[in-house]
Amino acid sequence: MNAFTIWFTGLPCSGKTTLATLLYNHLLQWGVSNVELLDGDVVRQYLTRGLGFTKQDRDENIRRIGWLSRMLNKHGVNAIVAAISPYRDVREEQKKLIKNFFEVYVKCPVEICEQRDVKGMYKKARQGIIEHFTGVNDPYEEPLTPDIVIQTDKFSIEDSLKMILKGLMEKKLVGQYD
Amino acid sequence: MNAFTIWFTGLPCSGKTTLATLLYNHLLQWGVSNVELLDGDVVRQYLTRGLGFTKQDRDENIRRIGWLSRMLNKHGVNAIVAAISPYRDVREEQKKLIKNFFEVYVKCPVEICEQRDVKGMYKKARQGIIEHFTGVNDPYEEPLTPDIVIQTDKFSIEDSLKMILKGLMEKKLVGQYD
Repeated sequence: MNAFTIWFTGLPCSGKTTLATLLYNHLLQWGVSNVELLDGDVVRQYLTRGLGFTKQDRDENIRRIGWLSRMLNKHGVNAIVAAISPYRDVREEQKKLIKNFFEVYVKCPVEICEQRDVKGMYKKARQGIIEHFTGVNDPYEEPLTPDIVIQTDKFSIEDSLKMILKGLMEKKLVGQYD
Repeated sequence: MNAFTIWFTGLPCSGKTTLATLLYNHLLQWGVSNVELLDGDVVRQYLTRGLGFTKQDRDENIRRIGWLSRMLNKHGVNAIVAAISPYRDVREEQKKLIKNFFEVYVKCPVEICEQRDVKGMYKKARQGIIEHFTGVNDPYEEPLTPDIVIQTDKFSIEDSLKMILKGLMEKKLVGQYD
């Protein structure tokens, strides 16, 4: 089975990291050890420290995550990416570069994301304290043809995970484990 | 056999990339496919674009390469790093973080490195056109306890490779393949 990259895209606080981490742990429990979680916030600490949030810097961030995913995939390691990745063009670019790319659009109305925001980031963005905040004062371009759309305001986390696993199985990216 | 990271350090044009590439191809020919070559110049194009050559930026560059090496090693992929990595402290830091770390000091007098310099980098550094050029106007701190020292002005490339392979075998990082 060829290694894959599952790419979670969506607004801040839409549920990307939650779902990606759940999927990661689920795969580990299934005995799939060749998997790596590349969370946008974590990656920015190690791989892309110093990059900001202009389109240019966001694109560079995404390209580095994509480069790393390809390297992992090449060696049979699956990558689970959770990153806002707000721009369609660079997502499409990565989709073309990465062989088994599975795009999950984590869809949630901005109002709901805002309610979930424990760090108060949306509030700071609304107050103008944070610039370039996706969904408030920076754009988010919805995927036009994602492999799956998960509406996290409508489905439970568990059901969302099941939908993702079903999607991965249908694409034969993971086997029927349970 | 646990995955390893072989780290080539030395002056610009000392022979790091040449030896690292030769080792990489040799391992591939041996059927060791779980190996990745992380060349400093290439990594700077993808992973660390935007970083300069101050100590701070060089350290960040090395830490990212180390972070990537650890991730690869964790998944059973061996890493071959070729990077000037002029500062001892950050090399020692990575040595502690990376489990099977094999340090190769590619030693060569600066005069010989300078003669080999097809890109004319040393010349530009001497003229003051390039700042922070290791060996000319930026320091290189020799390893105190490398796993092996390869004097590329004294040994042929083939003999150097043999010495490295012997060293790796003695540390049981690679098997007896031929």
